[in-house]
Amino acid sequence: MATAASTELTNHGSAAICRGCWDQMRVPIPIRGPLSLPFRAFGITQSKMNPNICTICERSFRYVKKQRHITASATILFADIRGFTALSERIEAVRLSEIVSLFQDQCAQAIWAHDGIVNKQMGDGLMAIFNFPIATKDHASAAVMAALDIQRHCAEALAGLDATLGGMPGRTLGVGVGIHSGDVEIGEFSSFRSDFTAIGGAVNLAARLESQAAAGEILVSPETAAQASGLTIGAETRLLVLKGIEQPVQARVLAKI
Amino acid sequence: MATAASTELTNHGSAAICRGCWDQMRVPIPIRGPLSLPFRAFGITQSKMNPNICTICERSFRYVKKQRHITASATILFADIRGFTALSERIEAVRLSEIVSLFQDQCAQAIWAHDGIVNKQMGDGLMAIFNFPIATKDHASAAVMAALDIQRHCAEALAGLDATLGGMPGRTLGVGVGIHSGDVEIGEFSSFRSDFTAIGGAVNLAARLESQAAAGEILVSPETAAQASGLTIGAETRLLVLKGIEQPVQARVLAKI
Repeated sequence: MATAASTELTNHGSAAICRGCWDQMRVPIPIRGPLSLPFRAFGITQSKMNPNICTICERSFRYVKKQRHITASATILFADIRGFTALSERIEAVRLSEIVSLFQDQCAQAIWAHDGIVNKQMGDGLMAIFNFPIATKDHASAAVMAALDIQRHCAEALAGLDATLGGMPGRTLGVGVGIHSGDVEIGEFSSFRSDFTAIGGAVNLAARLESQAAAGEILVSPETAAQASGLTIGAETRLLVLKGIEQPVQARVLAKI
Repeated sequence: MATAASTELTNHGSAAICRGCWDQMRVPIPIRGPLSLPFRAFGITQSKMNPNICTICERSFRYVKKQRHITASATILFADIRGFTALSERIEAVRLSEIVSLFQDQCAQAIWAHDGIVNKQMGDGLMAIFNFPIATKDHASAAVMAALDIQRHCAEALAGLDATLGGMPGRTLGVGVGIHSGDVEIGEFSSFRSDFTAIGGAVNLAARLESQAAAGEILVSPETAAQASGLTIGAETRLLVLKGIEQPVQARVLAKI
């Protein structure tokens, strides 16, 4: 089993065992193939956060980590559709739901391709975590590459819709992304939910960066940029004053379309 | 079974059958007592969104409503901890997690007491829906009453913590709430997740109101205020210009502490 696990760990596309349980506990939990059938009977299946992790990772944080929460080094990515509130006042509900579905699906594919998890989805926005529960050595670069994929895939997919959104002169649908790397608290933060999330100053900084990103932009914190220098070198810098953050932040601006 | 169900429907505290499945489909799904045991064996248990609904309601929207999404009249409530970003830069992670847990638990109790569901939790914030899947005749009033309970319970609970948060002169921990009633799209808006949520202009307006609420405040839209006039009459009004919303909004301000 250990040999099979090691082989699968190099295959990022579609692992036979849960990569979260392996990386966090060195326990092989089958999530694909015949060995996964008895686990499925007990409700242990692929997680909705990332199909390469299982529902034990997602919902049994205390069991996996033997504590309610832990401090971990991670990269946090926020993305949302720019101008969605204005859009939601103008177009019909069916179109709105198409746009949200398209955005969420394109983002998830990009995040999973770089071993991140879609931890939270909230309407036209989402939060992704890189480096937990799937350990990723260069999680800053993974998040930046996922963001570049998000921008590329969403631009293509939304362009098709855009042409049909009549009556909205001067408006282009686009996505804003914010990324920051640092220590976060990961765990269960309410007594009645068992799915984990991340909280802390680093999470809020990523969210604030995203709120300042224009359509097509990726705003990267100095900490993430330093760790992912190969992807951010030469990029425009922008000094941002962010709500609730004491010091101005010298962000890198990527993928301006 | 139908008689038992009818009896339980008057008991808002702790229903024996899923109130969502009953209200949406007139199907009695046992979630408490001996009759619930065979259902639990198939993974049908109390939902984390509200213990009086079941995981069928939460995760099988297409099966329950026989379509991917529907338009429904609902009241949407957003709440978050004011100044959390600034706080998260100053205090240690363990304290931060205590504050988030306390906030999420107090809010959930207040929302459940008025038949709402905690649809989304995101760090120091949450989104609640009233009138789906549990049908609530006066959902605007239910949401306002839940908000008043949130403010009362959080103020008491946070006051204890507040005294121990040294080094933060002039800062008081408090919660901001925004509420709006209107038509929303409810359904599954990504191909890989099966839990339902609400999207649309009405959801965004509630979120924008919450973003403008100071600590201790509940900002109520004119639509909600008109439906919950007994609770909002005589309250201060405030004209708000909200990002992405074309017309200024004449909000009612409740529970200013």
